[in-house]
Amino acid sequence: MEPQTPVGEIGERALLRHLRSRIPSGPGVVAGVGDDAAAVETGPLTLVTTDCLVEGVHFRREWSPPRLLGRKALSINLSDIACMSGLARYATVSLGLPRDVPLAFVDGLYDGLLERAAETGVSLVGGNLSASEAVIVDLTVLGQGDRLLRRSGAAAGDLVVVTGTLGAAAAGLRALEKGARLDGDGALSDRGPWAADAADGLEPCLRAQLDPAPPLAFGRALAEQEAVVHAALDLSDGLSGDLLTLCEENELSAWIEPEWLPVDPAAARLEKEAGGDAFSLALHGGEDYQMLLAVPPERVDTLREVAGVWSVSLSVVGQLADGPPGLSLRFGEAMRKLRPRSHDHFAVPERRRDAAPEA
Amino acid sequence: MEPQTPVGEIGERALLRHLRSRIPSGPGVVAGVGDDAAAVETGPLTLVTTDCLVEGVHFRREWSPPRLLGRKALSINLSDIACMSGLARYATVSLGLPRDVPLAFVDGLYDGLLERAAETGVSLVGGNLSASEAVIVDLTVLGQGDRLLRRSGAAAGDLVVVTGTLGAAAAGLRALEKGARLDGDGALSDRGPWAADAADGLEPCLRAQLDPAPPLAFGRALAEQEAVVHAALDLSDGLSGDLLTLCEENELSAWIEPEWLPVDPAAARLEKEAGGDAFSLALHGGEDYQMLLAVPPERVDTLREVAGVWSVSLSVVGQLADGPPGLSLRFGEAMRKLRPRSHDHFAVPERRRDAAPEA
Repeated sequence: MEPQTPVGEIGERALLRHLRSRIPSGPGVVAGVGDDAAAVETGPLTLVTTDCLVEGVHFRREWSPPRLLGRKALSINLSDIACMSGLARYATVSLGLPRDVPLAFVDGLYDGLLERAAETGVSLVGGNLSASEAVIVDLTVLGQGDRLLRRSGAAAGDLVVVTGTLGAAAAGLRALEKGARLDGDGALSDRGPWAADAADGLEPCLRAQLDPAPPLAFGRALAEQEAVVHAALDLSDGLSGDLLTLCEENELSAWIEPEWLPVDPAAARLEKEAGGDAFSLALHGGEDYQMLLAVPPERVDTLREVAGVWSVSLSVVGQLADGPPGLSLRFGEAMRKLRPRSHDHFAVPERRRDAAPEA
Repeated sequence: MEPQTPVGEIGERALLRHLRSRIPSGPGVVAGVGDDAAAVETGPLTLVTTDCLVEGVHFRREWSPPRLLGRKALSINLSDIACMSGLARYATVSLGLPRDVPLAFVDGLYDGLLERAAETGVSLVGGNLSASEAVIVDLTVLGQGDRLLRRSGAAAGDLVVVTGTLGAAAAGLRALEKGARLDGDGALSDRGPWAADAADGLEPCLRAQLDPAPPLAFGRALAEQEAVVHAALDLSDGLSGDLLTLCEENELSAWIEPEWLPVDPAAARLEKEAGGDAFSLALHGGEDYQMLLAVPPERVDTLREVAGVWSVSLSVVGQLADGPPGLSLRFGEAMRKLRPRSHDHFAVPERRRDAAPEA
């Protein structure tokens, strides 16, 4: 099979056989790819999550080298498992492929999936191939869990804490829209309209968008800590949208102190070049795949210690309070209502993630 | 929300909330819909399978009432679990929806999913919503298993056994192509070009296509039997294609005795009306979702007893033999090579399941 052969010429049976031959058997896999179902060793509690990338909605083929697309498809599911404080173990891959997609694309996608799986101790155990109009990469990941971090469980007075920095993935999306590109190795291949000295800001933002790195080990480590974190979810829709979700789950309100937001420095640099400001990207931009945590004030120091072990930075960005679900920005003593601008696939035709939250 | 409101107007957040409110909590579900991941109670071994229905590839919206589509999306995954001799427990639902799809369609789909889940003791525990060009219903089902039925394990001399009758789903697909229709309750709503006296053949064929009923309890019951069945898989691609898969998995050949095929009587009646013959539908037609079993000859009587308990009919249709993977039809003492004509999503543009296997 030549790399440029369209999958429609290869045929479903041969393509399945080819992909199956690429997948190594992993620990705990009793029956892997190729049977009616996979059989995997599990504990008394199993975590399940599913998340899907659809061409034209979540990615464009000309923007995403297939290897990075494979990595991202797994990472966004791993993020969900980590935010429950679980350990990801197994994944199934359901692919939809247009018939003219070349084998090289599918192989590149599997390069990324298998590489990311190996990095994180996940075994691919099965899947499904289907023809479709657009490329669809739909993964389900199983994990083990014990002490679960839920979205519920937060209390008024809990501090709102985020990991890492915010806004880089949204800035990366803007850069893609302007023509900047990464190659399959994740290196900058096209600066788009940016000058040479902007390159060191471009690459991390593009990588945050195309190959996110959620704090998996930190999330899992929180299972060892009792009552340090009250509630958690992953930042996929953007801080404002996800914090509203946290509020709704707990029937609480929240305020954010703008000064405290850990705006990603590379995103800030890029936006400044473009005469803008990365603050709204950090507040509303999606796909950071960091963690959003509700933490009782007296436990923040303990949490910082755990974060230090895993080289994860933490920022307190606000607080939960009594009151109907809703968000405010705090300016000194004054509070100003904040309307979340989280991503809505259905309501924003022909637009991707919430990447242009001006004003 | 009015039933005719397009999902694009409702928005992702409100639609998720609405669907979540419809899903009951089930046994073993520690964290259900609405968290980053679901958490479910499992045993030491978990079965996982994923199967996807894509509009324009696996179904057409004008052919499939949404309730039946929901039932089928679950049933085809349940079939995979049953063919491993497992018990399905949990399902996640990943939906892709065009923005103009009305709420009534999504609700109808969930009517079917929830109803079929309740019938079979399955809990919906999570999922994902995404915009897409075509409707996509991608399910992952988790089950429990102990003594697994694999595709491997067959031996030369094993009899080839199928459950139920064959060809009805393929005949149902032909009837849909000619304009016959079921309503959401599974009752005949349009006979298409058929005369009134053909109606009792039409309805079962359409139902086999739109709302398949795999022998779930029988498949599960086989876990209680030691060494009665050597290998099994479900008949989704058609007997010839799936039997070739069984041959390939076991490096064996197989012959089929045409006289022994349990051609579905309703399919036979329909095809006869059209001046044809249902034999090739039974041999090559897909989506029967019956079981294909490799059974040592001395255990067939025991297997018949188990099947009797679950009101499942069994037919010996051929035998496995030494020799390179390949199929033959046996006519008396003569063998004629049989080329499988199983379904290939990629190789047959703009065509659905292998439903027109003339000659």
